Amino acid sequence: MEFSSKLLENAVYEMSQLPGIGKRTALRLVLHLLKQPEERTQLLTEALSKLKNQVNFCKKCHNISDTEVCAICSNPKRDESLVCVVEDIRDVMAIENTSQYNGLYHVLGGKISPMEGVGPQDLNIVPLINRVRQGEVKELIFALSSTMEGDTTNFYIYKQLEGLDVATSTIARGISVGDELEYADEVTLGRSILNRIPFESSIKAT
Amino acid sequence: MEFSSKLLENAVYEMSQLPGIGKRTALRLVLHLLKQPEERTQLLTEALSKLKNQVNFCKKCHNISDTEVCAICSNPKRDESLVCVVEDIRDVMAIENTSQYNGLYHVLGGKISPMEGVGPQDLNIVPLINRVRQGEVKELIFALSSTMEGDTTNFYIYKQLEGLDVATSTIARGISVGDELEYADEVTLGRSILNRIPFESSIKAT
Repeated sequence: MEFSSKLLENAVYEMSQLPGIGKRTALRLVLHLLKQPEERTQLLTEALSKLKNQVNFCKKCHNISDTEVCAICSNPKRDESLVCVVEDIRDVMAIENTSQYNGLYHVLGGKISPMEGVGPQDLNIVPLINRVRQGEVKELIFALSSTMEGDTTNFYIYKQLEGLDVATSTIARGISVGDELEYADEVTLGRSILNRIPFESSIKAT
Repeated sequence: MEFSSKLLENAVYEMSQLPGIGKRTALRLVLHLLKQPEERTQLLTEALSKLKNQVNFCKKCHNISDTEVCAICSNPKRDESLVCVVEDIRDVMAIENTSQYNGLYHVLGGKISPMEGVGPQDLNIVPLINRVRQGEVKELIFALSSTMEGDTTNFYIYKQLEGLDVATSTIARGISVGDELEYADEVTLGRSILNRIPFESSIKAT
């Protein structure tokens, strides 16, 4: 792609560094900003810089928060003995959206992935173990994605918990509600048969 | 979507104002920037602000340019008597990529579109007519998209040119090179039969 302006080329280049944004999309976005009033660009760049410079993570669960301890951790109505371990703040948002969970969270900030150079020390694992050591937590719920990296991370944390008095569980895997059995993949279907639950509990859940 | 931080919410909102970027994609992009070193955000915001504040349009063809007159307009090897009328600077880039055109351009900055509130006065049409009036231009090539808005814009400009000594043409529409006839839409196939060209010229073009 040949640009008629260095300024334009530079803006497109920086935009195309974002994940899933190719050169063509980047050009479209940049030209859109150029056509809009100046405030649009200013609001966007200010919001991004401000977030990056002033972002704060909850010192308890490592979720993004504007206060030292986030709204979930400081809510006295939530069950402090239950901690759900997730990868990312998007997972917190997804679980919160269900309105089915009343415990706290712990955001790891990623998964152990030797391929991408992410080791246990890059994640919030030590703070999690310390949290458990303090004795308030009775159950840890692993809610990482069920990939090799997710399973490795679960197992690593599980090993670190040895000798500590805490129950561990993982969220249920199975056929999505509303899905047809014939289209489900074998692994999921297999797991959902092995981990079947009493019919009475399935009635209660709905 | 409920956010745990106002700063985050604000950044996601501004990002989602870009065309084709929904709330979920915006969140993914913003969280990506958060994970990256601070320079990434800084480089992006600086490049965008700089472009918006310092952008300059070639005073002859209205293409984005870092100089008063762009590299194409100031190139003495290009044919000044030929001007290709396009909607957007992306069209200039697309035509330049073909290496088949040696004339100059005129970037309108859009199409006449009453639905979107874009009238002739919002486009660079008056400068185009003035350019033709100066007498250097012998032929105008309309290369707008063949939508209703594009056709309207072509026709509006054509009417404004009445009495001026300039030839007008439009780029050829037809079946794409390499395409199968059976899959072509009828309008395109119909036009490509009506506007057939002597076989000898088609051999020369390849």
